[in-house]
Amino acid sequence: MSTYARPLEVLIDELGRLPGIGPKSAQRIAFHLLNVDRTDVARLAEALVDIKDKVSFCERCFNVAEGPRCEICLDSGRDDHVLCVVEEPKDIAALERTGMFRGRYHVLMGAINPLEGIGPEQLRVKELAERLADEDVNEIILCTNPNLEGETTAAYIARMLSSFDMITVSRLASGLPVGGDLDYADELTLGRALEGRSFLTQSTPPKNRVQPTSSVD
Amino acid sequence: MSTYARPLEVLIDELGRLPGIGPKSAQRIAFHLLNVDRTDVARLAEALVDIKDKVSFCERCFNVAEGPRCEICLDSGRDDHVLCVVEEPKDIAALERTGMFRGRYHVLMGAINPLEGIGPEQLRVKELAERLADEDVNEIILCTNPNLEGETTAAYIARMLSSFDMITVSRLASGLPVGGDLDYADELTLGRALEGRSFLTQSTPPKNRVQPTSSVD
Repeated sequence: MSTYARPLEVLIDELGRLPGIGPKSAQRIAFHLLNVDRTDVARLAEALVDIKDKVSFCERCFNVAEGPRCEICLDSGRDDHVLCVVEEPKDIAALERTGMFRGRYHVLMGAINPLEGIGPEQLRVKELAERLADEDVNEIILCTNPNLEGETTAAYIARMLSSFDMITVSRLASGLPVGGDLDYADELTLGRALEGRSFLTQSTPPKNRVQPTSSVD
Repeated sequence: MSTYARPLEVLIDELGRLPGIGPKSAQRIAFHLLNVDRTDVARLAEALVDIKDKVSFCERCFNVAEGPRCEICLDSGRDDHVLCVVEEPKDIAALERTGMFRGRYHVLMGAINPLEGIGPEQLRVKELAERLADEDVNEIILCTNPNLEGETTAAYIARMLSSFDMITVSRLASGLPVGGDLDYADELTLGRALEGRSFLTQSTPPKNRVQPTSSVD
């Protein structure tokens, strides 16, 4: 039953295709836009077209970029010797917000996920190996997500990198989030926090006081 | 710190202005659109521009319309004698989905809300009175929302309509939602359900067996 004017139904339908927007939200947004100033809607429409026209992926690190190279690759003030390997361009933004990393990045464009048919060939792994052959990198920090896919990907890349004997490979620490509560931490996270504990005073600590978990990394 | 390409940041910003979309959702949608086919994005952008260019409000009932009149006003098969008065055009869609109403509508474009400075003058109340003078309406069903603003609006219009002595005025029933659970119903709803109870067998029921609530309608 078509009770809305056709263009409105088309818009509700198009909005409903976006991730995280159900039919009710789509309707709500469409009616909001109907009442909003014409220029505001035009600006949104233009922004949409613009990202397809003006944004692409950096040819070197696969971050989002306005030209062939992204802002970070173009920044000559960054350390060429250390590389953070991430799954998605948005992970770069998260790492940049810490303000603690001044090296370069490499975006894999996903993580290994056999169930969805994503293997290393679907990711930018080959391109990473090519970069390492060309560039003078001596440390790689694996910053994939701490979930099954991310850990698998990190393990795969760590194994691949074992042939590059001049490169130190590290992995983001797993542990308790800052401001968190021990009581609310899940067993896996707490287990990782134990494993990765940092020694404040050290008198040749006996190894394996904590049973290592069967982590893949 | 700008780590995204500028057009992407503009889009995230624009999406974040939409109702119900926070910064995280905006980012998620923007990255989704970055990976989506160009034609899909163009279609969304076009749909946005279209609602501003092609959709307006019906000059008679203020439903959304592609031309001067909406589909329902143009439908000659509908009953001219009965009018549902609703707050918003989307309420028409909700009523149409019941498939039980074949009359016309009148959209008030809101509800009386003194806190937000919305009085009867800001609503299409004058236009309703004008329609009633011109058209041959003999029943009005007040379908404003069952909340404070909706009830106030219904009460206001009911009072206004008392001068039209040929028009029956009714209000949507309040009560338990179908499939609901008595135990979970709030007191007000359950009270309304008692007040508005329908008699299945009737032996001149004594009046006021149930204390009426101090409802405004």
